[in-house]
Amino acid sequence: MHLPARVGDYTDFYVGIHHATNIGKLLRPTPLLPNYKWIPIGYHGRASSIRVSGVPVVRPVGQQRLPDTVEPLVAPTDRLDLELELGVWVGGGNALGSPIPISDAHTHIAGLTLLNDWSARDVQAWEYQPLGPFLAKNFHTTISPWIVTAEALEPFRVPQAPRPDGDPRPLPYLWDANDQARGAFAIELEVAMTSAAMRDQGMEPLRLSLSDARAMYWTAAQMVAHHTVNGCNLMAGDLLGTGTISTACPSGLGSLMEITAGGMEPITLPTGEQRTFLLDGDEILISGTARAEGFAPIGFGSCRATIVSHA
Amino acid sequence: MHLPARVGDYTDFYVGIHHATNIGKLLRPTPLLPNYKWIPIGYHGRASSIRVSGVPVVRPVGQQRLPDTVEPLVAPTDRLDLELELGVWVGGGNALGSPIPISDAHTHIAGLTLLNDWSARDVQAWEYQPLGPFLAKNFHTTISPWIVTAEALEPFRVPQAPRPDGDPRPLPYLWDANDQARGAFAIELEVAMTSAAMRDQGMEPLRLSLSDARAMYWTAAQMVAHHTVNGCNLMAGDLLGTGTISTACPSGLGSLMEITAGGMEPITLPTGEQRTFLLDGDEILISGTARAEGFAPIGFGSCRATIVSHA
Repeated sequence: MHLPARVGDYTDFYVGIHHATNIGKLLRPTPLLPNYKWIPIGYHGRASSIRVSGVPVVRPVGQQRLPDTVEPLVAPTDRLDLELELGVWVGGGNALGSPIPISDAHTHIAGLTLLNDWSARDVQAWEYQPLGPFLAKNFHTTISPWIVTAEALEPFRVPQAPRPDGDPRPLPYLWDANDQARGAFAIELEVAMTSAAMRDQGMEPLRLSLSDARAMYWTAAQMVAHHTVNGCNLMAGDLLGTGTISTACPSGLGSLMEITAGGMEPITLPTGEQRTFLLDGDEILISGTARAEGFAPIGFGSCRATIVSHA
Repeated sequence: MHLPARVGDYTDFYVGIHHATNIGKLLRPTPLLPNYKWIPIGYHGRASSIRVSGVPVVRPVGQQRLPDTVEPLVAPTDRLDLELELGVWVGGGNALGSPIPISDAHTHIAGLTLLNDWSARDVQAWEYQPLGPFLAKNFHTTISPWIVTAEALEPFRVPQAPRPDGDPRPLPYLWDANDQARGAFAIELEVAMTSAAMRDQGMEPLRLSLSDARAMYWTAAQMVAHHTVNGCNLMAGDLLGTGTISTACPSGLGSLMEITAGGMEPITLPTGEQRTFLLDGDEILISGTARAEGFAPIGFGSCRATIVSHA
């Protein structure tokens, strides 16, 4: 299996509102920043380190600063996390200076893929101000090996979930009635893991999360319209990550940061091993299934990788 | 003239310490964050919108929130700025998972170029938390049309400026005696502008800044070593921006944000026109000259572009 396309530019969004809220609670008194409900928050990621399912992930080394210390140290991350995401493939771009209107945005989406945005939380905490995550993320991104096309996903389009009372209506450049009516996708997303010991003992993967693409606060079309409102040119082969998709349920959390409450509440594996973050030999398996009454479900293929030591 | 290479990934650093300090003063009581003197701070930028000198810059539209308001508006930026930078071309990459040691980092640098990281300050202020600048930057980046090769720059290598007393020594993965002895470049950098009225009247460009590449707190080799310490793979054709290079002098500031004190102190053009940020028809010209006793100076070619209306 190979990457389905050579990725030009890779952008990662942050449209999983439950994830953003859960992470925000670990960081500040008001979890969501004032811009969150107005802007599909996104930032640029690294295209060169995107790898297809199955390629092992080398545990990254990086600067970290331990609590109550002044000087950072350089060491392999102790807080290696996964992030459950969808990837949106851009199938047709726009000229520099020419925004894509929200009404046309869906025609620029070639299809979807599964995406694991591996994250080193200790590196991230120390480096990310003021310009955002960098080495905490760009060491590896895993995607599933094929594109489930927009055409194939037609039967699985569903209305965008209504916003809670009091949330602002999207600004006109992000609002389209058709997109609101059909811009979300009924896709179940699952994260599971095995440890090396579990595999040695022939155990099945342990499910960590059962999430749902309907938990996105912004649609894929809104991501495209926002990305280009300033004239930024998308190109065929660009990849847009959704950001971590968590549901509102404790069983639907898309990262270990959330599942273990920032590393405070370990999970227990069937072997009796405990985990807060990932150890060498752990394998993460992300799967996705589009479901709709009267249609055969569509799978997304495998998005899996094993953590290997940095040395 | 064309781009000298197809840019794979584009990363922008923030190694101009005077710029970081000047911007920090506008934002917070302690201008430099605690990580600044430990980490060559960087983030990913947009490769697709990099254009060669001469291509007009379309004024971007974006979300902005005016002071003392709750709801953002969507409008062409009123605070369009330039950023004086050097671009570092990567000439040879590394395999994913294999960091480039600081001692080898200079061999991965193909050469340098001039770079203008156009910035919409009002968009930036509203969007950049928590994941960094995005639409405020990715609408256009202008570079000069050729690469001044590392070989050609050999005579212009100079010692990295000693750090002020009390600053930490770079961590071992960022410290190399040869890099400290020869890792900086004696390159004068100039920013000048004309308005449409100035050009109509045949006036010469007005110099806005005379800066110097020696004002970088981290060397280009340190940028390369840091970028890859986590195993991130650089590729031939990647471009690394230095971030805005300002000197410690009021005459050496690399952005209008600094020159006009955040828009509070307008500059006056020879026509009597005033500017805080750029208006349509303004042209920004960046030039660079490597100088060393006993060697012919080397120019970097032109890095210029004119602002045009978004409509």
